[in-house]
Amino acid sequence: MKAVPITTGKLADRLECRIEGDAELLINGIATIEEAEKDHLTFLANPRYRKHLPNCRAGAIIIDEKEETPASVTRIISTKPYTDFQSALGIIYQSPEPEIAKGISQRAQVHESAVIGKDVCIGDNVVINADTQIGDGCIISHGAFIGTSVRIGKNCEIGFNAVIRRDTIIGNRVVIGDGTVISSDGFGYVPDASGYHKIPQIGSVVIEDDVEIGANCCIDRATVGCTRIGRGSKLDNLIQIAHGVQIGEDTVIAAQTGISGSTRIGSKVIIAGQAGFVGHIEIGDNMVVGAQSGITKSHDIKGLISGYPARPHSESVRRDANINRIPKILERLKELERKSKKE
Amino acid sequence: MKAVPITTGKLADRLECRIEGDAELLINGIATIEEAEKDHLTFLANPRYRKHLPNCRAGAIIIDEKEETPASVTRIISTKPYTDFQSALGIIYQSPEPEIAKGISQRAQVHESAVIGKDVCIGDNVVINADTQIGDGCIISHGAFIGTSVRIGKNCEIGFNAVIRRDTIIGNRVVIGDGTVISSDGFGYVPDASGYHKIPQIGSVVIEDDVEIGANCCIDRATVGCTRIGRGSKLDNLIQIAHGVQIGEDTVIAAQTGISGSTRIGSKVIIAGQAGFVGHIEIGDNMVVGAQSGITKSHDIKGLISGYPARPHSESVRRDANINRIPKILERLKELERKSKKE
Amino acid sequence: MKAVPITTGKLADRLECRIEGDAELLINGIATIEEAEKDHLTFLANPRYRKHLPNCRAGAIIIDEKEETPASVTRIISTKPYTDFQSALGIIYQSPEPEIAKGISQRAQVHESAVIGKDVCIGDNVVINADTQIGDGCIISHGAFIGTSVRIGKNCEIGFNAVIRRDTIIGNRVVIGDGTVISSDGFGYVPDASGYHKIPQIGSVVIEDDVEIGANCCIDRATVGCTRIGRGSKLDNLIQIAHGVQIGEDTVIAAQTGISGSTRIGSKVIIAGQAGFVGHIEIGDNMVVGAQSGITKSHDIKGLISGYPARPHSESVRRDANINRIPKILERLKELERKSKKE
Repeated sequence: MKAVPITTGKLADRLECRIEGDAELLINGIATIEEAEKDHLTFLANPRYRKHLPNCRAGAIIIDEKEETPASVTRIISTKPYTDFQSALGIIYQSPEPEIAKGISQRAQVHESAVIGKDVCIGDNVVINADTQIGDGCIISHGAFIGTSVRIGKNCEIGFNAVIRRDTIIGNRVVIGDGTVISSDGFGYVPDASGYHKIPQIGSVVIEDDVEIGANCCIDRATVGCTRIGRGSKLDNLIQIAHGVQIGEDTVIAAQTGISGSTRIGSKVIIAGQAGFVGHIEIGDNMVVGAQSGITKSHDIKGLISGYPARPHSESVRRDANINRIPKILERLKELERKSKKE
Repeated sequence: MKAVPITTGKLADRLECRIEGDAELLINGIATIEEAEKDHLTFLANPRYRKHLPNCRAGAIIIDEKEETPASVTRIISTKPYTDFQSALGIIYQSPEPEIAKGISQRAQVHESAVIGKDVCIGDNVVINADTQIGDGCIISHGAFIGTSVRIGKNCEIGFNAVIRRDTIIGNRVVIGDGTVISSDGFGYVPDASGYHKIPQIGSVVIEDDVEIGANCCIDRATVGCTRIGRGSKLDNLIQIAHGVQIGEDTVIAAQTGISGSTRIGSKVIIAGQAGFVGHIEIGDNMVVGAQSGITKSHDIKGLISGYPARPHSESVRRDANINRIPKILERLKELERKSKKE
Repeated sequence: MKAVPITTGKLADRLECRIEGDAELLINGIATIEEAEKDHLTFLANPRYRKHLPNCRAGAIIIDEKEETPASVTRIISTKPYTDFQSALGIIYQSPEPEIAKGISQRAQVHESAVIGKDVCIGDNVVINADTQIGDGCIISHGAFIGTSVRIGKNCEIGFNAVIRRDTIIGNRVVIGDGTVISSDGFGYVPDASGYHKIPQIGSVVIEDDVEIGANCCIDRATVGCTRIGRGSKLDNLIQIAHGVQIGEDTVIAAQTGISGSTRIGSKVIIAGQAGFVGHIEIGDNMVVGAQSGITKSHDIKGLISGYPARPHSESVRRDANINRIPKILERLKELERKSKKE
């Protein structure tokens, strides 16, 4: 991305931060604390990286006033360095041009009954089927497929080679990552003596406003009703959302997590990576789910659950510590047995 | 999907069920117990959802005769509500038209030596290479790639942007999901002082009749011989099948499971989500493997294995319960030590 | 793949191995010990497969001299059968022709400012954007997207429907698997009262020489700086590499592993399948990480770590054994309590 140079003084003004050092220094980019050079801004937010401060070669740093820095580094004093770093990213870097030209590519196939909004970018080899609506300002990247009777709101971005099958409903400002598949059939079979028989999956998927979904995810359509991702929720890469799952608003899910059929996740839940949920359970609002947890039943507590089967984290930690006490238990038992024999 | 309206009476007849209530009610669709309105059919199969019965607004419900329902709801009395619900789906909903037009798209590239059957739908931007055979009635979705010398049987459906590399053999009525990659090279390297060197992967993949594979899966080709998915087996999304794996018939594998090289899974095995198998082991017929299990050796028992390393589930449960007994053990030890000191 | 027939005698010469049996036997292919017929070569490297030796129908076998084989099988005596098997694969099988024709497909879209090397194969429906360089001898498979200002070295192979977004730097002889997504935005959001707000991801991805990455992986671009995969490292399928991760040289990572943001993995590390790493930690050179491990902090020891949270493997095994001792502990406690009561 292209940086727009700015002086440290002007940057500090815009961040509403005090500056210590050279207010005329021209910043040409942002870099990590280890890689920043003298025309770069860097930041210290996570104390793990404090060890790199003595050798920091950056021109300027966003930092808490209590931290010590080399004399050569101009300090932008902040009480919330990570948030101010994020703001600085937005100030110094311009959003890049989209990779797809304005308008509808001559190499796209848009069905005559599809309704396409204004100011769209529809890429090469895109196929858009009948009765589908694409809102104003959408970017549909090269190679994406949009099925029949799909509705996509305004200012959405659909990734390269993404697949959105029929009847999907997508809100405004939604981002769907490259290679992600929305509304493939749910995994539903009924067994009999001759094998497994597919259950028709007649439901759909609803993705509400401001949802962002990463790359190579799978969001299956519901058997009946819909699979729903609530407003503002953010999903990382390689996530599996099975048929009929309901996810609340502003919930964040890290990579490689899987949620089984008909499970309901509340709002403002935070789920770490590689967690797995069985089907037909409910997770309350505001919960936090640890990485690799296996969630086997409904939970609705304050705070973090972890482990397999998932438990309140304090309980997981206690169990873990208790296992470590077994060798000592064996010693104490032996001592008691020795004494008991003597008597 | 489009519903074909039917009266409750006719539907009950076709399901061979007794009806209690209005046999003339016109059903326009199927919905979940929470969402069904008065022109909808719903069902109760899982007791978790019984709590929604008192407020059920559905026109009709497929239900066990012992359950109580509001007087307004017509009852279709069933001893197997889930199976009858599944049949009702097939009666009320028509399969949708495929998303790809009949014939071979002018925007597909089919090699002149490829043999294409009758009644196929071959989509835009599909590439089919030399010496490949596609059977009658196949649907090859937009953006799919079918390599050299692949054989695909009759009535298969290959998903959008799926990749099927050279020499793959696919039976009849096989479904391959969107974005799934079949016959990519197995992960085989030999290390020496200069680094890792690729082992040629000269084998192939065989997918037998009636197999269904979900979206964004990876099925690697064997080093020698073949990777095989047996007749009737069903795989969910985001599954990894490594080189040389053999899967039996009518085995079901849930999402995000991974099976390492040369492992053999029996027939009628059920594998829950996110399970992982090391290489070169054997899992017997009819076994059940718990979610997130780590299977580190061969197993051939009746019933369920779970945990890491995977054990018979009863053993996993007992170990889990035993860990919970440690605090009590510590108390009892302390008491004995107190007594012993006194004496 | 096509085999080039060779006599057992000539093959043994090229492998620098002694032969016992018929040196004039013509070998037409390589097969597994169970499937090999009389014109096939097979091998025994893993003792698990020794049980198949008595029924081996192969014409020839690469084998340690101590093993017993049926009299009908010509023996190629080897002290390192797996390495010699791998060499035999390279001798007997020719690399197949690439699936993409030489030159730039008329159905590819290459921006006029892109610089394309000699002897390339650029497939159908490929899009290559402005200011991008593709080195000599590269294969860009059908449906791949290469964004703006990407640099790809010589003799690389980019898989079908792979996505390489802007500013990515790729070395020489790199393989990127089908459906893999490189340089999608890292998963970074800042919450406030109104929800989560995206942090611009201005960094890039660097993939060094001789790296090979499997199918349907996701390698995210860094927030600032770059995500780096070091020279010679090999990644299997369905792997998640988050923003800012640094992977050393000659490190091997098995399928479905996930590495969270800013974590550093050393060189010559071996990571088994489905392992998960939290962010901002460091894993030392030469370490081995067990399958399904959950790595919650930095480690730098000799040998293997395993379990959740990951520990030195000997410790994991000991803990596991200790849990098994709880029933016996309970018995011993009971006995002591019985005695203590009597007294």
